[in-house]
Amino acid sequence: MEDNSVITPWGVTGEIDYDRLVERFGTTRLTPELLERIGGHTGRLHFMLRRGVFYSHRDLDLVLDSYEENGRFVLYTGRGPSGPVHLGHLIPWMFTKHLQDKFGSKLLFQFTDDERMLLRDDMDESITRHWVYQNALDLMALGFDPDKTEFIVNTRHIDKLYPIALKIARRVTCSTVRSVFGFREEANTGIMFFPSIQSAPCFLESERNGEPVPCLIPAGIDQDPYWRITRDVALKLGYPKPAQVHGRMLPGLMGNAKMSSSLPSTAIYLTDVPDLVEKKIQYVDTKGVPDGCPIFLYRYLLLEESDEEVNMIYESCKSKCIGCEECKWGLVKKVNRFLVGHQRRRELIKGSVAKMLE
Amino acid sequence: MEDNSVITPWGVTGEIDYDRLVERFGTTRLTPELLERIGGHTGRLHFMLRRGVFYSHRDLDLVLDSYEENGRFVLYTGRGPSGPVHLGHLIPWMFTKHLQDKFGSKLLFQFTDDERMLLRDDMDESITRHWVYQNALDLMALGFDPDKTEFIVNTRHIDKLYPIALKIARRVTCSTVRSVFGFREEANTGIMFFPSIQSAPCFLESERNGEPVPCLIPAGIDQDPYWRITRDVALKLGYPKPAQVHGRMLPGLMGNAKMSSSLPSTAIYLTDVPDLVEKKIQYVDTKGVPDGCPIFLYRYLLLEESDEEVNMIYESCKSKCIGCEECKWGLVKKVNRFLVGHQRRRELIKGSVAKMLE
Repeated sequence: MEDNSVITPWGVTGEIDYDRLVERFGTTRLTPELLERIGGHTGRLHFMLRRGVFYSHRDLDLVLDSYEENGRFVLYTGRGPSGPVHLGHLIPWMFTKHLQDKFGSKLLFQFTDDERMLLRDDMDESITRHWVYQNALDLMALGFDPDKTEFIVNTRHIDKLYPIALKIARRVTCSTVRSVFGFREEANTGIMFFPSIQSAPCFLESERNGEPVPCLIPAGIDQDPYWRITRDVALKLGYPKPAQVHGRMLPGLMGNAKMSSSLPSTAIYLTDVPDLVEKKIQYVDTKGVPDGCPIFLYRYLLLEESDEEVNMIYESCKSKCIGCEECKWGLVKKVNRFLVGHQRRRELIKGSVAKMLE
Repeated sequence: MEDNSVITPWGVTGEIDYDRLVERFGTTRLTPELLERIGGHTGRLHFMLRRGVFYSHRDLDLVLDSYEENGRFVLYTGRGPSGPVHLGHLIPWMFTKHLQDKFGSKLLFQFTDDERMLLRDDMDESITRHWVYQNALDLMALGFDPDKTEFIVNTRHIDKLYPIALKIARRVTCSTVRSVFGFREEANTGIMFFPSIQSAPCFLESERNGEPVPCLIPAGIDQDPYWRITRDVALKLGYPKPAQVHGRMLPGLMGNAKMSSSLPSTAIYLTDVPDLVEKKIQYVDTKGVPDGCPIFLYRYLLLEESDEEVNMIYESCKSKCIGCEECKWGLVKKVNRFLVGHQRRRELIKGSVAKMLE
C-alpha cells in the first residue's frame, strides 16, 4: 500500500500504512519477547496488545527496566479541552488505564487549554474550563484511580510547568519547532513556546523526586514526531527520554483514517444519545468486507475484548453469513450499551472529579 | 550631533542624542503645560523633571486624565535579577518612588528571572533567587511603600501572568519580535515568547479590577521601542496602552553612554565599599569641561537635588575655579554618603523584604 498519509498533530489525512509508519518514524515494533516481558507483569496480555492495536514503541524496554528495578514510572497523556470526547480518544485512554491498573503507575493528564486559546480565536477560558471538566469526567469514568491521577490544567498549573518549560525552550529554536510541527513563518510566539509546555510533564516527576523517573506516553503513532524535540532535549537536561507506546488510530465514520473532532460528522461522541448513535452508524458506507471496514474496526480496535467474538464476526462477514445491516445493528447495540454504562458512571463521579479539579 | 547610537534592550553603544531619540522613536516631549499639570498634583516639580532628566513620554496625559477622574493608575517597572544594582538603575527607580509618594500609586515590580535563564547558560534558579532578594533590598531601601509595592518574580508568579501573556502572544508573530528585539533567526523559543510575559503586568490591574487601569512605565528612553508591541496589542485586547515616561541614562565611568552591568568596570554598584568607590571615581578620564562629564552628570542626573548646588558646580568647572581632582573628591564623598545611608536602610528592612517575597 502506498503511504500517502499527511500527519500533523491536528489531523491525519489519507490512508495510513501502519507498518510503513514504523519505518518512516524510526520506531521499534513490539516484539514477541517484549510482549512476553509485559505479560510477565500484567498476566494475560491486554487485547490491544494481543491484536497489535498497540504495536510500536520507543524505549518501553527501558521503562520496564526501571519498573523492575524500583517499581517506578509515570504515565503521561492529555487532551486539548475544546470539545467533547469521541470513541477515537478511548484507544489510548483505555490502554493507559490498563497500564495504571497493572503497574500501579501515576498518570499525569495534561489539559492544553493554553494551546487551544493560542490556536483558536473563538476560545476563551470560560469555554476551556467547561470542557476540562466534561473531558475529565469522561476520562475518570473509564475507571482511573483518582489517587494516582493528577490533572494538569496548563493555565491553572503553569507554576509547575513553567520552570521546566524554560529549560526546554532555551534549547529549542523556532526553526526546529516550525519544521517538526509544520507551523508557518507567521506563527504566533505563543504557539512556538507551547511545545515546551507540552514537554514539561515528561520531566515533572524526575524534578519532584530529584532522581530519574521514566515517563511513558501511550498515544496514537501519529503523535510520535512531536516528541522528537523532547527526546533530544532530555539528553541535554540529564532526564530520561520520554518513552512511548504507539497505537493505531480509530477510523472515522466516513472511512477516514482518524476519527476527528474537526470532522464532527465522522465521530461518535461519548455524549451522543442512542438514536444519534444509531443514525450515525446506519449511515456508514460499508462494502461487505471486514478489512478496513469502520464497523468492524470499532469492535476490533476498541469495543470487543473477546478475541473469539471478533474472529467470529470477521469470519461471518468474510463468508457472507451476516450482512452489513445486521453487523451495523450489532455495533449500535454494542456502542449504546457501552455509552449508557459510561454515562451512568460519569454521573456518579461528578463530585469527586470536581474535587480533583479544585 | 550625529546619532550613531545602537540600542537594544541589553545595551546601548555610541553617543546618544537625546533630542534625536524623541524624533527617532516618535515619542512626545514633556511640554511646560504637562509639567505644570504634574506639578499641580505633586507640588514643586521633582528635580529630574526640572532638569529634563525625564523629558519625554507616551500617553502620560491620559494617565493624568484617569488619575484626575478616579485617582487611579499603576506604576510598572522591573529588573533582570542576575547581578548587583548600580547607580544607573536608580534614575528610573528614584523617579518611580517619587511618583508613588505623590500619586499614591501601586507599583508592580517584575523580576525577569525567566529571561535571565533563557539568555544565559550560567544562570539557574538558585542564582536568580539570590539576586531577586538582593535587588529587592536595594529597591525597597529607596523608600517604596511596602503596602503599595507588589513583586512579580516571573517563575514564581507565572500563574498571574500566563493567562494574560497567552492573549498577547496569540497576537504577536516571531518576525515582529525578531525585528523589534533584534533576535536572530536561531533565537530560542522561550525568548520569543518572553516579551509577552514582560508585557503582561501592563494589563494585570485592568484584569484584576475588571475595568481599565492605566499603567505607567518610568524607564530610560532606550526601552521605548520594546513597548511598541505591547501598545499595538493593547488596542486589540481592549486594554489601555501602557504609558511611558522616558528618562536619560546615567553614563558609565568610561564615558560610555549607559552605565551597564555587562561592562562592570564602568559601574558603581550599591554594594561597593567606600575605597572601591574612591578608586573607581579617581580613574575617570575627565577633560575639565562639565558638558558630557560623567563626574558632573552623576550629580546632575541623580545625586544632587539642589539646583543651586548643581549650577554652582557647573559654573565653577566652566570658569576653572575648581579642578577635576577637587570635583572628583566631592563626588566620592557624595556617593559614599549616599551608599552608607543606603546600606544602613538596606540592613534594617531585610526582614520585611524577605516577607514580601514569601
